[in-house]
Amino acid sequence: MTLLIRGGTVVDSIHSYRADVLCADGKIVQIGTGLDAPAGAVIVEAGEQLVMPGGIDPHTHMELPFMGTVASDDFFSGTAAGLAGGTTSIIDFVIPNPRQSLLEAFNTWRGWAEKAASDYAFHVAVTWWDESVHREMGVLANEHGVASFKHFMAYKGAIMADDEILVNSFRRALELGALPTVHAENGELVYQLQKQLLAEGKTGPSSHPLSRPSAVEGEAANRAIRIAEVIGVPLYIVHVSAREAVQEIARARGEGQRVFGEVLGGHLLLDDSVYLDSDFTRAAAHVMSPPFRPKEHQEALWQALQAGHLHTTATDHCTFCAPQKAAGKDDFTRIPNGCGGVEDRMGVLWHYGVNSGRLTPSEFVQVTSTNAARIFNLYPRKGAVEVGADADLVVWDPNASRTISAKTHHQNVDFNIFEGRTVQGLARHTVAAGKLVWSDGDLRAERGAGRYLPRPTFPAYFQANAKRVGRSG
Amino acid sequence: MTLLIRGGTVVDSIHSYRADVLCADGKIVQIGTGLDAPAGAVIVEAGEQLVMPGGIDPHTHMELPFMGTVASDDFFSGTAAGLAGGTTSIIDFVIPNPRQSLLEAFNTWRGWAEKAASDYAFHVAVTWWDESVHREMGVLANEHGVASFKHFMAYKGAIMADDEILVNSFRRALELGALPTVHAENGELVYQLQKQLLAEGKTGPSSHPLSRPSAVEGEAANRAIRIAEVIGVPLYIVHVSAREAVQEIARARGEGQRVFGEVLGGHLLLDDSVYLDSDFTRAAAHVMSPPFRPKEHQEALWQALQAGHLHTTATDHCTFCAPQKAAGKDDFTRIPNGCGGVEDRMGVLWHYGVNSGRLTPSEFVQVTSTNAARIFNLYPRKGAVEVGADADLVVWDPNASRTISAKTHHQNVDFNIFEGRTVQGLARHTVAAGKLVWSDGDLRAERGAGRYLPRPTFPAYFQANAKRVGRSG
Amino acid sequence: MTLLIRGGTVVDSIHSYRADVLCADGKIVQIGTGLDAPAGAVIVEAGEQLVMPGGIDPHTHMELPFMGTVASDDFFSGTAAGLAGGTTSIIDFVIPNPRQSLLEAFNTWRGWAEKAASDYAFHVAVTWWDESVHREMGVLANEHGVASFKHFMAYKGAIMADDEILVNSFRRALELGALPTVHAENGELVYQLQKQLLAEGKTGPSSHPLSRPSAVEGEAANRAIRIAEVIGVPLYIVHVSAREAVQEIARARGEGQRVFGEVLGGHLLLDDSVYLDSDFTRAAAHVMSPPFRPKEHQEALWQALQAGHLHTTATDHCTFCAPQKAAGKDDFTRIPNGCGGVEDRMGVLWHYGVNSGRLTPSEFVQVTSTNAARIFNLYPRKGAVEVGADADLVVWDPNASRTISAKTHHQNVDFNIFEGRTVQGLARHTVAAGKLVWSDGDLRAERGAGRYLPRPTFPAYFQANAKRVGRSG
Amino acid sequence: MTLLIRGGTVVDSIHSYRADVLCADGKIVQIGTGLDAPAGAVIVEAGEQLVMPGGIDPHTHMELPFMGTVASDDFFSGTAAGLAGGTTSIIDFVIPNPRQSLLEAFNTWRGWAEKAASDYAFHVAVTWWDESVHREMGVLANEHGVASFKHFMAYKGAIMADDEILVNSFRRALELGALPTVHAENGELVYQLQKQLLAEGKTGPSSHPLSRPSAVEGEAANRAIRIAEVIGVPLYIVHVSAREAVQEIARARGEGQRVFGEVLGGHLLLDDSVYLDSDFTRAAAHVMSPPFRPKEHQEALWQALQAGHLHTTATDHCTFCAPQKAAGKDDFTRIPNGCGGVEDRMGVLWHYGVNSGRLTPSEFVQVTSTNAARIFNLYPRKGAVEVGADADLVVWDPNASRTISAKTHHQNVDFNIFEGRTVQGLARHTVAAGKLVWSDGDLRAERGAGRYLPRPTFPAYFQANAKRVGRSG
Ligand SMILES: [Zn+2]
Ligand SMILES: [Zn+2]
Ligand SMILES: [Zn+2]
Ligand SMILES: [Zn+2]
Ligand SMILES: [Zn+2]
Ligand SMILES: [Zn+2]
Ligand SMILES: [Zn+2]
Ligand SMILES: [Zn+2]
Repeated sequence: MTLLIRGGTVVDSIHSYRADVLCADGKIVQIGTGLDAPAGAVIVEAGEQLVMPGGIDPHTHMELPFMGTVASDDFFSGTAAGLAGGTTSIIDFVIPNPRQSLLEAFNTWRGWAEKAASDYAFHVAVTWWDESVHREMGVLANEHGVASFKHFMAYKGAIMADDEILVNSFRRALELGALPTVHAENGELVYQLQKQLLAEGKTGPSSHPLSRPSAVEGEAANRAIRIAEVIGVPLYIVHVSAREAVQEIARARGEGQRVFGEVLGGHLLLDDSVYLDSDFTRAAAHVMSPPFRPKEHQEALWQALQAGHLHTTATDHCTFCAPQKAAGKDDFTRIPNGCGGVEDRMGVLWHYGVNSGRLTPSEFVQVTSTNAARIFNLYPRKGAVEVGADADLVVWDPNASRTISAKTHHQNVDFNIFEGRTVQGLARHTVAAGKLVWSDGDLRAERGAGRYLPRPTFPAYFQANAKRVGRSG
Repeated sequence: MTLLIRGGTVVDSIHSYRADVLCADGKIVQIGTGLDAPAGAVIVEAGEQLVMPGGIDPHTHMELPFMGTVASDDFFSGTAAGLAGGTTSIIDFVIPNPRQSLLEAFNTWRGWAEKAASDYAFHVAVTWWDESVHREMGVLANEHGVASFKHFMAYKGAIMADDEILVNSFRRALELGALPTVHAENGELVYQLQKQLLAEGKTGPSSHPLSRPSAVEGEAANRAIRIAEVIGVPLYIVHVSAREAVQEIARARGEGQRVFGEVLGGHLLLDDSVYLDSDFTRAAAHVMSPPFRPKEHQEALWQALQAGHLHTTATDHCTFCAPQKAAGKDDFTRIPNGCGGVEDRMGVLWHYGVNSGRLTPSEFVQVTSTNAARIFNLYPRKGAVEVGADADLVVWDPNASRTISAKTHHQNVDFNIFEGRTVQGLARHTVAAGKLVWSDGDLRAERGAGRYLPRPTFPAYFQANAKRVGRSG
Repeated sequence: MTLLIRGGTVVDSIHSYRADVLCADGKIVQIGTGLDAPAGAVIVEAGEQLVMPGGIDPHTHMELPFMGTVASDDFFSGTAAGLAGGTTSIIDFVIPNPRQSLLEAFNTWRGWAEKAASDYAFHVAVTWWDESVHREMGVLANEHGVASFKHFMAYKGAIMADDEILVNSFRRALELGALPTVHAENGELVYQLQKQLLAEGKTGPSSHPLSRPSAVEGEAANRAIRIAEVIGVPLYIVHVSAREAVQEIARARGEGQRVFGEVLGGHLLLDDSVYLDSDFTRAAAHVMSPPFRPKEHQEALWQALQAGHLHTTATDHCTFCAPQKAAGKDDFTRIPNGCGGVEDRMGVLWHYGVNSGRLTPSEFVQVTSTNAARIFNLYPRKGAVEVGADADLVVWDPNASRTISAKTHHQNVDFNIFEGRTVQGLARHTVAAGKLVWSDGDLRAERGAGRYLPRPTFPAYFQANAKRVGRSG
Repeated sequence: MTLLIRGGTVVDSIHSYRADVLCADGKIVQIGTGLDAPAGAVIVEAGEQLVMPGGIDPHTHMELPFMGTVASDDFFSGTAAGLAGGTTSIIDFVIPNPRQSLLEAFNTWRGWAEKAASDYAFHVAVTWWDESVHREMGVLANEHGVASFKHFMAYKGAIMADDEILVNSFRRALELGALPTVHAENGELVYQLQKQLLAEGKTGPSSHPLSRPSAVEGEAANRAIRIAEVIGVPLYIVHVSAREAVQEIARARGEGQRVFGEVLGGHLLLDDSVYLDSDFTRAAAHVMSPPFRPKEHQEALWQALQAGHLHTTATDHCTFCAPQKAAGKDDFTRIPNGCGGVEDRMGVLWHYGVNSGRLTPSEFVQVTSTNAARIFNLYPRKGAVEVGADADLVVWDPNASRTISAKTHHQNVDFNIFEGRTVQGLARHTVAAGKLVWSDGDLRAERGAGRYLPRPTFPAYFQANAKRVGRSG
């Protein structure tokens, strides 16, 4: 299949320039002005629009079994919704149960993901430790293209990684050239605060943020950073939501440590007043961890994104419908944690980021696509508008507006945390693997069209880091 | 007994002024110029000298059973040496074994301490957790004058307090109006680094600092601070030795949190080159935790002391002689951890602090005496030159010099980490409970003269803090 | 005259204790429990009340000729109002015109101040530079008890001190053992912003804060700090109002530099919304420099006060009535700058500081009295409850409340920036120079009773600093 | 002319990949594997070598008339030396005298630069202010491709820009879409310290660093940043040499401000001990401003470069031979300020940056080339390995070593501040405008081959910034 995007302005992670982009056999094959359309080529007229690398959402949980239920967006519906918003790749999480084989879990998730409409990769969580975990991390990294491992510092009594797991796993990651990542919340404090709030009869959603104050995140972020510093391994912190965590990352980076940070669209825009909604369904719909924060944290997150202390934007897309959320009607700790966003991430980032002057268009490309590709070693297959790269592109209309709503979105969930926001700038067309999968509101996502993306280990920053560790060792 | 200190300059924590000081029945009874000496009074002619509150060393371990041996200075020899250096009170540590009753341990230490030559108080360590510990903390605080509890974040497999213990104990301390304190090192990292170093055959003392890098202290300091922040309780961090920990304390205090920091004379003056000494005995003599640090940390500690980010100076006095240290000849992790200093603390602080212009004389009094008294609620019985205060005083000669040496010191140990340093400024006379116990080189310490110092709970800063906690709760 | 304060709790800068206080001949002559009242002594029954050092307001401008008018509170009315609020000393400013002799100006102000009801001292401003200024600074310091000099970094074209004046004057202050102080705003930026706003037709009071954004203060604070660092002299920054300036002070102090900061009650409590008042008179009544700031700065100021990055509280008391403020009806740059507060400072500090748990009672004493006395070398004559100190005391009722209002205050001005606030805690009795000058609402201020307070140079912190400068020079 | 670089690994600012690069008519015309060499093409066999964008030195002073003499490297010898080291473009400075027309000075420099062997652009200094300067800035920006203006905050009495000039010029730059840059040192402090040192008879080169301590740079950096913040304009700080300045930049960037920083190779590697050399000639050869700093500053600079707080590396290449430096034999303030380095910059950056693991190869490309191109709006003509870009390339041999020496360098000066350092990694071939100008030690620089590079205004970051300024205005 051949496709020509004609007349647009290419925006990559460095700059913007007028060019046509020709795609064939799933790849970008030519970039230039005045390209001729091969016979039979699909033509996309870009006009005043921007041609950018398709978005990469490095943090999703499609059809995740969690808290007694299963996330409502599966790999098909979730990735399809992503395509409608300009996101052409996701990185999801394999989360083994404690004592479960990592490989077994990995294979389970691989099976689920076969229905995906867009390409996908996996982080694998390390939720326990013994020699077999050590061994299987090696198998995953060396034979299955898993170049990043996840650690939950929260969820005590379930999947929480204590310091012993963290130290062992980070050290193993260093050997393998794989990137450790963490969900940074102090699980013990959360656990005790939850107990205390329940004991005081404070069982509603408004207790959720009280049980996970920002200091809890600051603590865990710093702990993970310090452990990574001592081990000498790079680190990636998912869903940074708190000023405290931002400061820890900025400090570490300012001292030359390779720490990366991710921020969710939700945390950039929503504050904790949502938990005071008297309607349980609405309040519960916002229950995710880390929770939305007091307003002043938002400015800190934006500034960190501008300053390069945060590098990627994600969604932690993990959707539950009202009946699922209702499991926590009488106990906020039983509300399935999770919100959506894979469809809306790029739109809100453009509107609140580029239109406000916080980000240049190229910086938008960096934080929605290129940086994720580089950090997770998918570049330049993904994240680039280059000859030879996968033809994953979004044709972005910076002038058109839309109003976000659960009524119209493509996500398989009955709620949208950005409900009612009108954003200017949207994906007019999305091209995935060279095919036009979203065009002027027409979603042509194909079940199973997505491919698993194996990722090599030892990205360039890792190699450099290794020289430093050797140096001081 | 009556004693008159005549003609000196009183230096208290605020200012200096010419005055005589009359002591009777263990108390200061009059301060003024031209006081008449009562019949039979001992007269100390202070002349050009300074009359200051006797020093308080808030961190000692006399006759501590530790790592298979017992610290060589017992409560008599250790406190006697303190008197020779101008220190008239110590706060030592009761360290129960895991599962041991706190009260039982407390009583054991009380027994040992009866031989003390100077007054003493106790912190009690919380090394494990169950309901009985919760209860006995209450008994100790309410009935035995224990207003501070200690937590070791290091020493995995022995007395290490994990997050669960920390959270429970800090919360209990808040209820009781008692101050939690921590030894801040990440025990898991230390444990793993020790294992790794030993596995690599790096068994000598030079591995000691490598197994406890400063990041390990920074991590634990931050964790304790964040837990205290969430719980809403003040916090005291013992033996702050690392720039990283200083920064965490400064940050927290800058945000209005009540965090106090202690620094040891040794950490202010020695660096980690001592561990490279080819003589095992000398190198091992410096093994303590946290270890001496790379040189740049010293400046950070001095600056923090000047800035009020650190509040007290201590010694962690815990002495072991060469034969004891030899237990770790083939394995640095078996070298009994500890160094001396109770005798030298005030001298080195004056010389390196006041003579260099870092500290005013009143600031010297604050960091060697008054702040410890205020934080640990012994003020104004201790730490003050006030009518009604205990007559614990040091007559300080700012012009005289001495050279520190194990050959001449009064500590019961064969090594002195300040060996060979000549310091200007020394305790010419020490008065404890109104008696002249050290005078011109004559040590008149009396076995058993020291008294236990019960300490009330809820010091003023704690009451203020409680109002804030209430406010935001 | 003899006066006995009986039954109260003395609160000094360190702690609280039950004691009676006997005053005679203007001095405190005895402190103790169960003191007998001499014959004829005035008795003040303190009961549940607190006996504290009288407040010191280190920043006032009584009867200042400024911007074409004269401040409405003169030395009598202003100091009398201070007494009604528990403030027993002020430090006012002599502000010579450029090219005017400093001594001549000093003598002018000495004359005006003879009517004062409470004691007073003077800072002298250095508004220009030549050899005569150098010489007269010496005369003032050595012969007239002027131990601090003021520099306005704003007010271009009038009294602004540029870098050349700052460097010369700071160096001279170092020689003299006198403390340089600065009003920190970048005068050039203010000047340009004022011009620009006026050119845009934005002539109302709402332009006032826009012409002096907080970055302007941060810049000047840092510049003064750096100059002081290079010269090697301590520094005091008046009316710190901005987060940016706080951060600069905290940084410098954290590096061991002796920098002190002052904060006004107004900046702690009011925000810049006052300038949006549609009533010109009300908006203009709040015009002072630096202006009230966006709300988030208040928390930064409180935290800095708690952390010891700010040391004193003042008012910059400089009152203008509505007809005076009306001079700027058509041009906000002509509104006489200044607000009142000398009467209310202690009340608002107690209510918002102590009642909220931010400050202990002793910390309240530090920031309202003792620290000013120590920094400006009035201690222990002022700022202490000690035998021999001036009998300047306030008997504070922590349980009584009052509502602040221009209708009831004793300040000679028609507006009160704290109007309508009900504060708990008030001066029940004020004793100045041993006389009861305010008692249960009865103000007995006496015209001319105040005395000039000469201040010695080379306070202790200055001496220590000089050792350091010598060391590194 | 056609040239094919065959078999190498292209390293651009994002990643590395195997490809051949074909150049024709001064441009890159094809990038790919297995490219055929056109007939007559020059072939460069790259083998194990890296093909990177030619270096851009954004800070040089060729043949500058300064301090009574003229820099010894002229535009030909200086740019030729740059080519030998892999640098293919420079940005030099037009420095009008106060009261001189900017256009007139610009034309003078344009004339001098005609002999350049490599391409060049100009920053123009604003050294005074009136309406004509305002107007000529516009002419330069709009008609002559000058998109950046320089301000010297030092050199009082000569070209120093005071706050009035800075504010006016920064505001004008904002209108024009041009980038203001500053040399950040407080000129008043330098002036006073110089006077003082000379008065004390300290006339030798060892006084040079004492007259310009790092606090002086920290002050000026912060002042420029604050002024830029208030005006709302991006800012570039040249030759950042001090920890203090780094901290200010990091702070501002962390708050979302667009501030860029440049660091010199010399400041990264040399410390102030060079000024203690007893040989005047050697000590004087190192006299430049800012001076080399105490060692601890180097680590801060490297960390900032890694963290992205500093963006470009430059040299401030401004060479004077020993007879010229001798002008300051008896007065260090008369030693012509300046050092060389245009030839060695890339080599030392690679060796100390990449070989040590501080930087990845792509990060090296960023800081030696791409970032300068992007900030100064030369991208993608310069700084990119892209079809259509200028064929300015360096073929880098990462395995070869050389020892730097004045005996062998191509710079027209008798001294090299990196003398005797052996660095691994060197420019094996340099291609400029598609011609092989340096190949295996053979320098084929052509007098006058260099072209003036006009630069458009309003780069992308500027446009984004403008949206923000509008937003908050
Ligand atoms: Zn998570
Ligand atoms: Zn997640
Ligand atoms: Zn310890
Ligand atoms: Zn200890
Ligand atoms: Zn002022
Ligand atoms: Zn004022
Ligand atoms: Zn320069
Ligand atoms: Zn230069």
